[in-house]
Amino acid sequence: MKLVAACYQNDLFLGKLIEEQNVVFNLSMAAKEKNMEFPATMLEGIKLGTVFLDKINQLLDTFHENLLFTYGLDDPDLQWLAPIPRPAKNIFCVGKNYKDHAIEMGSEADIPEHVMMFSKAPTSVIGHGAGIPRHEGITEELDYEGELAVVIGKIGIGITAEEAMDHVFGYTIINDVTARDLQKRHKQFLIGKSLDGSCPMGPCIVPKEYLGDPHELKLITKVNGEVRQDGNTKDFIFTIPEIIKALSAGTTLEPGDIIATGTPAGVGKGFKPPKLLNSGDQVEITVEGIGTLSNEVI
Amino acid sequence: MKLVAACYQNDLFLGKLIEEQNVVFNLSMAAKEKNMEFPATMLEGIKLGTVFLDKINQLLDTFHENLLFTYGLDDPDLQWLAPIPRPAKNIFCVGKNYKDHAIEMGSEADIPEHVMMFSKAPTSVIGHGAGIPRHEGITEELDYEGELAVVIGKIGIGITAEEAMDHVFGYTIINDVTARDLQKRHKQFLIGKSLDGSCPMGPCIVPKEYLGDPHELKLITKVNGEVRQDGNTKDFIFTIPEIIKALSAGTTLEPGDIIATGTPAGVGKGFKPPKLLNSGDQVEITVEGIGTLSNEVI
Repeated sequence: MKLVAACYQNDLFLGKLIEEQNVVFNLSMAAKEKNMEFPATMLEGIKLGTVFLDKINQLLDTFHENLLFTYGLDDPDLQWLAPIPRPAKNIFCVGKNYKDHAIEMGSEADIPEHVMMFSKAPTSVIGHGAGIPRHEGITEELDYEGELAVVIGKIGIGITAEEAMDHVFGYTIINDVTARDLQKRHKQFLIGKSLDGSCPMGPCIVPKEYLGDPHELKLITKVNGEVRQDGNTKDFIFTIPEIIKALSAGTTLEPGDIIATGTPAGVGKGFKPPKLLNSGDQVEITVEGIGTLSNEVI
Repeated sequence: MKLVAACYQNDLFLGKLIEEQNVVFNLSMAAKEKNMEFPATMLEGIKLGTVFLDKINQLLDTFHENLLFTYGLDDPDLQWLAPIPRPAKNIFCVGKNYKDHAIEMGSEADIPEHVMMFSKAPTSVIGHGAGIPRHEGITEELDYEGELAVVIGKIGIGITAEEAMDHVFGYTIINDVTARDLQKRHKQFLIGKSLDGSCPMGPCIVPKEYLGDPHELKLITKVNGEVRQDGNTKDFIFTIPEIIKALSAGTTLEPGDIIATGTPAGVGKGFKPPKLLNSGDQVEITVEGIGTLSNEVI
């Protein structure tokens, strides 16, 4: 089940991708037709948890056959939004969660012993298909980082590794776009990670019930069709339960919180010479079972 | 003008401190009596800018004389909230913005050349008078950091130093409570800075028109009555316009954003042996022209 937030002729809606038919099904409109109470935003849906999924399945049962309330994925009036267009706090991000990436950014000594966590301002979020601003004059080293992101579904603090997956709603993809020069210059990562448009998110959220093992997903990043990152979440240094345990030890996690799980080797800065982003570059991040997040640098 | 968010017998309101009489004036109730449209939250007021201040002055003109709608500051039914109890994103925090603090945490080599910025999760915010959880078992090194905080009033990106003060609504005080062991263990500061209750904020916001020069304010932190920090914002390494310029270069700042400007020397970890926080400790941070933010470790 692939859930999207999108806009059709200026009308915001929640939808479900139907990949066999290459369409998106407008859940919001179908719910209205059926006089069903339905969440207005993905965040409200996430808070409902399995009740949200039950409602979606009811709508699919009613309307799926005849493909009512659907738009073709190539419809020019269809605009994708990030699944959570405006998170209620910064996006949590794990740094250096793949050994080969830690080494490409430094050496074996950079492999962390403990979860390293920084954040991206919510103003950095954009949707699938939106332009990533180049920020010329602000940064000369714009880089991509393809990442699996976890969406929290249930409030909690002091969450144990055993309980952790019970607090997950689902998964999406994040491009943790990074200004390498700012990241280095300002020591702590926040400024270099929070440029407007530097957090493409999407194209969809897959509820955990529909994804299988999140620790065995291929992750591929292409720039202008060239494969740059070819990783697998099985190579995480810290698993999702370990990350949730470390972060929530003294900090309450809430529904709609987003945790980006780190990027594998192959970022632009890791190449010699570096392969950084420039205007016109097409970045595509594919995570197995979720889809492809595509954005052009503008 | 000292503006507060507070709660009286479970009724949330915006208020103004009237220090001569040791009372808080309930602006929300006065506005209702006068049939005046009035913001429900401080954030809405901040977005109104000077219109908000004009409304407050009208209410004061009407009701001040007879002290209607006021509560004594020692009234047990009066509970202080943080001026912005739930910020819409993480609190921006400047690291090492006073030379003597940079040196006490390391050496001369730790004096930054560029603004260092990290964040605290919004779940860490508590009000004046609320308890700071000790988080025993999570941290063995809980520490205080008294700081002047800037509240943004006007949206902007690429803000120049010259324009910066035009984007400021006012000022408050923040205790940037820090788990030193977690700060060190997790490298990036987020986890060690985001424990629940680790961002006491208040007691009030002073609009910039009522504060004078924010770069010449005494800042004193006491623990159990003992002076630990005795600084002055004139010793900033980076001024408020420089901080706003650096942060907003590629990142949109929005009304209600909070930027903590860093702490002077005298944090617990800086003493030999360290003077860290324990249950029962009373932390009081006084910033000239704003007031005193008091919280007990519980």
